Amino acid sequence: MDSKFVIYNTRSRKKETFQPINEGLVGMYVCGPTVYGDAHLGHARPAITFDILFRYLKHLEYKVRYVRNITDVGHLVNDGDEGEDKIAKKAKLDALEPMEVVQQYTNSYHKNMNDLNVLPPSIEPTATGHIIEQIAVVKQLIDNGYAYESQGSVYFDVRKYAADHNYGELSGRKIEDMLVNTRTLDGQGEKRFGLDFALWKNAQPEHIMKWPSPWGMGFPGWHTECTAMSAKYLGKRFDIHGGGMDLMFPHHEAEMAQAKACYGHDNVNYWMHNNMVTINGQKMGKSLGNFITLDQLFEGTHELLEQAYDPMTIRFFILQAHYRSPLDFSNTALQAAEKGYQRLMQAIQNIDSLTPSKQSTVDIKGLQDKCYEAINDDLNTPILIAHLFEGVKTINLIKEGNQKATEEDIQQLKDLFQNMAINILGLRDCVEGDQQADVLSGVMDLLLEIRAEAKANKDWGTSDKIRDQLKEAGLAIKDTKDGAEWHLL
Amino acid sequence: MDSKFVIYNTRSRKKETFQPINEGLVGMYVCGPTVYGDAHLGHARPAITFDILFRYLKHLEYKVRYVRNITDVGHLVNDGDEGEDKIAKKAKLDALEPMEVVQQYTNSYHKNMNDLNVLPPSIEPTATGHIIEQIAVVKQLIDNGYAYESQGSVYFDVRKYAADHNYGELSGRKIEDMLVNTRTLDGQGEKRFGLDFALWKNAQPEHIMKWPSPWGMGFPGWHTECTAMSAKYLGKRFDIHGGGMDLMFPHHEAEMAQAKACYGHDNVNYWMHNNMVTINGQKMGKSLGNFITLDQLFEGTHELLEQAYDPMTIRFFILQAHYRSPLDFSNTALQAAEKGYQRLMQAIQNIDSLTPSKQSTVDIKGLQDKCYEAINDDLNTPILIAHLFEGVKTINLIKEGNQKATEEDIQQLKDLFQNMAINILGLRDCVEGDQQADVLSGVMDLLLEIRAEAKANKDWGTSDKIRDQLKEAGLAIKDTKDGAEWHLL
Repeated sequence: MDSKFVIYNTRSRKKETFQPINEGLVGMYVCGPTVYGDAHLGHARPAITFDILFRYLKHLEYKVRYVRNITDVGHLVNDGDEGEDKIAKKAKLDALEPMEVVQQYTNSYHKNMNDLNVLPPSIEPTATGHIIEQIAVVKQLIDNGYAYESQGSVYFDVRKYAADHNYGELSGRKIEDMLVNTRTLDGQGEKRFGLDFALWKNAQPEHIMKWPSPWGMGFPGWHTECTAMSAKYLGKRFDIHGGGMDLMFPHHEAEMAQAKACYGHDNVNYWMHNNMVTINGQKMGKSLGNFITLDQLFEGTHELLEQAYDPMTIRFFILQAHYRSPLDFSNTALQAAEKGYQRLMQAIQNIDSLTPSKQSTVDIKGLQDKCYEAINDDLNTPILIAHLFEGVKTINLIKEGNQKATEEDIQQLKDLFQNMAINILGLRDCVEGDQQADVLSGVMDLLLEIRAEAKANKDWGTSDKIRDQLKEAGLAIKDTKDGAEWHLL
Repeated sequence: MDSKFVIYNTRSRKKETFQPINEGLVGMYVCGPTVYGDAHLGHARPAITFDILFRYLKHLEYKVRYVRNITDVGHLVNDGDEGEDKIAKKAKLDALEPMEVVQQYTNSYHKNMNDLNVLPPSIEPTATGHIIEQIAVVKQLIDNGYAYESQGSVYFDVRKYAADHNYGELSGRKIEDMLVNTRTLDGQGEKRFGLDFALWKNAQPEHIMKWPSPWGMGFPGWHTECTAMSAKYLGKRFDIHGGGMDLMFPHHEAEMAQAKACYGHDNVNYWMHNNMVTINGQKMGKSLGNFITLDQLFEGTHELLEQAYDPMTIRFFILQAHYRSPLDFSNTALQAAEKGYQRLMQAIQNIDSLTPSKQSTVDIKGLQDKCYEAINDDLNTPILIAHLFEGVKTINLIKEGNQKATEEDIQQLKDLFQNMAINILGLRDCVEGDQQADVLSGVMDLLLEIRAEAKANKDWGTSDKIRDQLKEAGLAIKDTKDGAEWHLL
């Protein structure tokens, strides 16, 4: 079935059948977080999108090497070549060493990813951990004539590159249009041309994060790390590069240009980009007051939230949209997702209690084919989920006796949900712990009612027995003027 | 109270009052794992020992920067200068890229540490992430005349160092004795002297993990990383260096020598070493069949284990011995620890239900002083725990009405246990989830008994009501020939 797996390639702007470079092996690289603040909704979407891809490729029995980096230096405020390093700025604000900031937010990112059931990548390299490799890339670019040193910094020569290749190929931009949006004029400052971007930046003496280089003390430009680290761990040509649409320009455009200028050929076969999230129809932004972190979402502690949302609700909600479509978060939409998710999980639990028949009136194989068709079509998770809900309907009809399924079909149904919902969509049952508490609460209501009746009937034997045995079980009951209450001992 | 905090300093071989270099700030460095296999009992002890130190220093309101490294290159099999890199060897065995091995075991180490309630350090630097800094250390040592290049490798010149300083100062060894144990003869191979150790190793072409250096392609020696990374994040002189006793020689002795040879002075004020663990009286070793990983311990899946042990049982057990004493693991000892731990946790829960009196017959302040005295005495956790059990006795006496405590004293007792058991010893309540299951099971026994009685009395109204309301609560009951059974729906 893997031969039919189709991916939308941002570069070609069409769907292409996925064909790995080396049979049975897939190399994929995804841009991870810049660790200077808590992970928010904008981090959840790419992480989950490429987690589905990772899981599906493994399901197809590829051996996958998934590299997702941690940007811990070089990403400047405003994503350009000027201004402070995001991490150094945060470290200054919090009076910490930059690597303490990095550690804190790397840890919280990992925790959030684990909450969202996002699998850890095979390798999670850091920018500061690959300075030598980045310096080698910059040297190569200078040697190849695509980069120049200027006052201790090194810039990529976009005009030179554009003469030989197509700068703007990935993002679909034209140099003339891009120039309008740049504030740097040619020949002014360190750059020869307004669109040139930094490969290595000269560090002022007060900079904390800096390393020796052939051009003096400095630090890498933001785009250099991904070129260096993808080549180190996946080779100079690998299968898939993913990331959020917001990274397409300048970050991925620059990566593509760097690789071509280094090796003379593309390093990526399939470029994939997930679309953005909005909140109540608005772009997320600190100034708009709608910047919601994942922790706030899980705890319900942001003023825009009507309740806490379980990480699985968030995951399910994100998967209900196709990754290339925009996605709007609202309480109404999340609450609907919560219900849908619980309905799905309940149905999965119900499979175990179905009674097999000698004959089937349902077509599980047909359902399975439709599920694979959906996921094979550029990871169309919303269509896949729609098919799973058909399956939910089938499960409930069998349960009610209105449809029949053989033991074999029930097993196939179970395997299908296990594969699609649990293994590939990565949903996990979150109700277990709560369920036990709910059940205990319901059972105790009943017992206290029985005890109240016994007392009303002056059946002290029974009422005392209930109190004593509950105490033995680890519960205390207390009679109040509003009736009996209980608590765990 | 911090003025009285006393630490046993391995170098001076006596207890010294702890005095930080910078008032209010503490820098501490602890050797973390070499990530080429699952964490085992031997990893739990240093992690927990220095977690207690980290927690207690923070309790004393120091601002602590705690650096614990990840060794992901350069640690050769047999801990010497010859043989394969431990990670490269494992990567070869598993047909993985070395950094995939590193990622896998770093992740599992983090998971185990989290299970053990070990706080993450402030910074967790990796050896591969600090090649530039290590090269700088090696260069400095050559410049200072304490190191020499030999066939693309660089060695520390122990004879030269020993002429100026005391090689063996930390571990208490004498050069003559050490020489007996080395297989390398003077003037043979690359080393000038048998005790010289590698700072940088020349890499053969087939080596995967290698970097460019002034001495050609190679990789750092095992001891170089800690000198480079501690200096980068804590400075050339910092407060505390910790690790397992097995690291004292050669690793820490080499670190001490490297720092003195680099800076002309010691870089560490207090050296601390935890003692080793044994299993049923034997040293742990793969060939002895008693090599128990933490996962096996938590899951009870090693043949030497009679049961699974909760991570908190392991933590509590480790803390019941002083960190400088050897510690023997056995089922009997762990089962005793499990009981003790549960008794302690139960007592903490009981504090909330104590009834205050107008007068106290107990001395909580005296108990508190004794607890601080114990922890201040070189982290004497077994004595601290003994005092806490005195507190447990007090709690139970108050509960039974045989002692009295004012509201203020009860609050002080609560604060004391919160500080000592939860914040400093880092114990956490593990019984919550299991407790609920146990309680539900006990309550259901009672309900099914009541239903059986009702049926025996032909009181069908009650028996049907129980069945129906249980179904509503999410439970099904099923009558079998051996009586009624229940299960969650």
